[in-house]
Amino acid sequence: MHLTNGKAVTLYDTSGPYTDPAIDTDVRRGLAPLRENWIIARGDTEEYAGRPVRPEDDGIKHTSPRGGLRNLDAVFPGRPRQPRRGRAGQAVTQLAYARRGEITPEMEYVAIRENMAPEVVRDEIAAGRAVLPANVNHPEIEPMIIGKKFLVKVNANIGNSAVTSSIEEEVDKMTWATQWGADTVMDLSTGRNIHTTREWVLRNSPVPIGTVPLYQALEKVDGKAEELSWEIYKDTVVEQAEQGVDYMTVHAGVRLPYVPLTANRKTGIVSRGGSIMAAWCLAHHKESFLYEHFEELCEILAAYDVTYSLGDGLRPGSIADANDEAQFAELHTLGELNQIAKRHNVQTMIEGPGHVPMHKIKENIDLQQEICEEAPFYTLGPLTTDIAPAYDHITSGIGAAMIGWWGTAMLCYVTPKEHLGLPNRDDVKTGVITYKIAAHAADLAKGHPGAQDWDDALSDARFEFRWEDQFNLALDPVTAREFHDETLPAEPAKTAHFCSMCGPKFCSMKISQDIRREHGTTQTEIEEGMEQKSKEFAAAGNRVYLPLAE
Amino acid sequence: MHLTNGKAVTLYDTSGPYTDPAIDTDVRRGLAPLRENWIIARGDTEEYAGRPVRPEDDGIKHTSPRGGLRNLDAVFPGRPRQPRRGRAGQAVTQLAYARRGEITPEMEYVAIRENMAPEVVRDEIAAGRAVLPANVNHPEIEPMIIGKKFLVKVNANIGNSAVTSSIEEEVDKMTWATQWGADTVMDLSTGRNIHTTREWVLRNSPVPIGTVPLYQALEKVDGKAEELSWEIYKDTVVEQAEQGVDYMTVHAGVRLPYVPLTANRKTGIVSRGGSIMAAWCLAHHKESFLYEHFEELCEILAAYDVTYSLGDGLRPGSIADANDEAQFAELHTLGELNQIAKRHNVQTMIEGPGHVPMHKIKENIDLQQEICEEAPFYTLGPLTTDIAPAYDHITSGIGAAMIGWWGTAMLCYVTPKEHLGLPNRDDVKTGVITYKIAAHAADLAKGHPGAQDWDDALSDARFEFRWEDQFNLALDPVTAREFHDETLPAEPAKTAHFCSMCGPKFCSMKISQDIRREHGTTQTEIEEGMEQKSKEFAAAGNRVYLPLAE
Repeated sequence: MHLTNGKAVTLYDTSGPYTDPAIDTDVRRGLAPLRENWIIARGDTEEYAGRPVRPEDDGIKHTSPRGGLRNLDAVFPGRPRQPRRGRAGQAVTQLAYARRGEITPEMEYVAIRENMAPEVVRDEIAAGRAVLPANVNHPEIEPMIIGKKFLVKVNANIGNSAVTSSIEEEVDKMTWATQWGADTVMDLSTGRNIHTTREWVLRNSPVPIGTVPLYQALEKVDGKAEELSWEIYKDTVVEQAEQGVDYMTVHAGVRLPYVPLTANRKTGIVSRGGSIMAAWCLAHHKESFLYEHFEELCEILAAYDVTYSLGDGLRPGSIADANDEAQFAELHTLGELNQIAKRHNVQTMIEGPGHVPMHKIKENIDLQQEICEEAPFYTLGPLTTDIAPAYDHITSGIGAAMIGWWGTAMLCYVTPKEHLGLPNRDDVKTGVITYKIAAHAADLAKGHPGAQDWDDALSDARFEFRWEDQFNLALDPVTAREFHDETLPAEPAKTAHFCSMCGPKFCSMKISQDIRREHGTTQTEIEEGMEQKSKEFAAAGNRVYLPLAE
Repeated sequence: MHLTNGKAVTLYDTSGPYTDPAIDTDVRRGLAPLRENWIIARGDTEEYAGRPVRPEDDGIKHTSPRGGLRNLDAVFPGRPRQPRRGRAGQAVTQLAYARRGEITPEMEYVAIRENMAPEVVRDEIAAGRAVLPANVNHPEIEPMIIGKKFLVKVNANIGNSAVTSSIEEEVDKMTWATQWGADTVMDLSTGRNIHTTREWVLRNSPVPIGTVPLYQALEKVDGKAEELSWEIYKDTVVEQAEQGVDYMTVHAGVRLPYVPLTANRKTGIVSRGGSIMAAWCLAHHKESFLYEHFEELCEILAAYDVTYSLGDGLRPGSIADANDEAQFAELHTLGELNQIAKRHNVQTMIEGPGHVPMHKIKENIDLQQEICEEAPFYTLGPLTTDIAPAYDHITSGIGAAMIGWWGTAMLCYVTPKEHLGLPNRDDVKTGVITYKIAAHAADLAKGHPGAQDWDDALSDARFEFRWEDQFNLALDPVTAREFHDETLPAEPAKTAHFCSMCGPKFCSMKISQDIRREHGTTQTEIEEGMEQKSKEFAAAGNRVYLPLAE
């Protein structure tokens, strides 16, 4: 970003081509497939006919009185494509490449974004300490990396629900979220048009898209958890992998013997995926089909380079339930699954809580890092208290900043609507900005190289009363400008050496500047010249401020 | 608070009589003097004529074209009173009483509020680890305590400035702030009507009021820092002590030799009081008159039981300046002044930063506790990054929660308008609620007895779908209800076993409840009955949810 004082500062940008005036975007056409040539050049994937799309993929039953025609109108009109997968069951994952010592174009791209050596990127992926989620069927993304050595990332959830929302709104929420800084977006849609909505979102998304395939699988069995099966689940995973989903939350750690451990909890099981799997296990009195078929699932994910996000289905939903036996039992299983995934060259991250008071947060990241061999941790908050519905972006932003500092690689945002309703555009923005604050605060605390440049640039602008630079450098320039203008809207106030908070008389920054002007700008100058200058200052009857306004 | 399930939970209330339907309040009459008889009964104070109020106390100059009549209309019409002070220079402070082993009615009141033994209250005050700010001229307050053994407190700043605001607005901001949970309020007015505004605020405030007398003193010399003097400052302190100000920020730690230490800072001196004193020191090339007259100041404060809030005039104003030499040099001086104040039986707390990245926060509280002999720490945030103007309630709420956990006794709120303008009602509310979250998260992390009862009550209500209890237990019931109703406004939704966030099919809490209903409510029941129940569950074709709505 270019500043009015002639300097510039480099900022990480998640908004894709949408904010580039030189690029013409059209949601009906989709984004250009930036990675396509890279993928083809590797020569290890092939196009194939793919699984036919069926009405029930969009939640449309043959018996449905509404029929399916209305939804076909919404089919994505962009360039026709066939799905792609690894040849002959090959693992075409960034993990496989990194382990072979290769630096892919995706890794190079990431290295530039992160201001890191490409070798570091490769080595972190090879060690399983970082993931680069990039399905071979999602060539539109600008590659990004999730790992504790890199900038802390933020995920924003979108998704229609049975109660509200439309396709257009969801695509708009995605671009809106990335505009404000979301590094990945999870499409958690559960209602109708789930397949079609996802197609639109993927074709227009510059960031990796995550999903929870279990939600769609449940729709396919009319919401009857006990009718779920490995076959239906697997079909859904293939469907979504062919579309280009970059990472999938899989609740394979919710095992039958752990369900009773939640019986004495204050808030039971609060993960949707977790409660669905628990209901399935109890209904059949059988071990989870996700756990039992995990190796087969690995083979599918490896063929598309879908990254695992191993879900924490037993995460605590209240302060009372934090760090309990159920939660950590599942974590141990996630550690075991992480090892299996790695054997299949599948990139893997681990999801974490939830509701956790501050003094119990560190145990979460420390245990996860130990049990899961430093696989990237991806946490929801955590929320540090239960008492503030409507402000859970803040209760959780506190926990997110702390756990980010301590090594969590990606923070799943929480919006003000958490526990109350579906977020609208404003809520998405508030959630993303709160989490960018948490992530950046964590980057600073971790001493990420260059992180402080941003703060320094803004503080310089503040001290020098360069208001326009202050606004433009702000995480949210629109609101910063609006707040300033609320009390001092006039154009001269944009260059005034004060703001309405203290007024001209009491602006400490102005007084500090006056001191420097009067007494010198370095410590030596001030010390040497202090006595002499003080006489002049008094003699001139000078004030510590100019009475610029009343 | 009484809940719909017949249970009750005790919550700390800062709103005073305003929210008590049995009490009729009138801002023109002021609050009843709750403490008056306690103060009189001690027999160690006397009423006296007091310092005459002068037009310049309200910023009205003889030369002012506007004259002073307009302001007299605003004079507080409530009960006439004479100021009160300790007899013959006696220290009539809670510290003096505690050191003598006395448990005052104020201490008893506090003990009940905090659910602590009165002896603990007394001993913490006697040791200087806690303060009970209660000017003998402010009998209207409901006593409260600030110390690390007690609930973390929140201060809200109000105050008109040269640019905007009126008396009515400030009184309203005070009651508004306490309604949402402010434990103390600082009146930082800097414009006209400063004396009269303060009188209205004090007479109507159920919480201790703090000020920075330097601001008013500067007004009295037309804003010319170099014309400030000990005499003018002292006159202002007496004026405010007679009105009933409970604690005063005194920037006596900004010493002449420290000013050059700020020369190489990114953002210089950002404390208003600090920059005024620095300008004075440089203009006269003399040691600060506050530092030089500190013992005399102690005598005045002791006669009214005004508590010191030793200001951190050299606090960092940017991430770059955190924990620097200037900041810690001043902290050492505050430690020295703390000892002097204690010798004079003056209650004392210490102010802290400011802008501090997360990894440098703990050093602040640890050093302060060591240097200031565990005197209560009272911090502004700290803000954990500089990049988010318009969201500094959040950048600072993160730091506030952490430093509260680690032992800070009171958190000075920051509103969304910080760095940009003067907060309005909405900003005050947002600031207070953000800081109540930080304070309560800290109480939980410190393991304060009973703190978790609040979270547990709300989480129980949440799990049992008692929506009305959820709203009423929320820090902000109004917004919680509004957010819920935005997507599900109908009355039946208030008892529905889901919300619009996930809809009826995917409500994990509902599924958890169904599991318990089907499989038992204890671990043993679930384990024993799991197989049997699972057969019945399948046989009944039961669903994990009821399709309550589409």
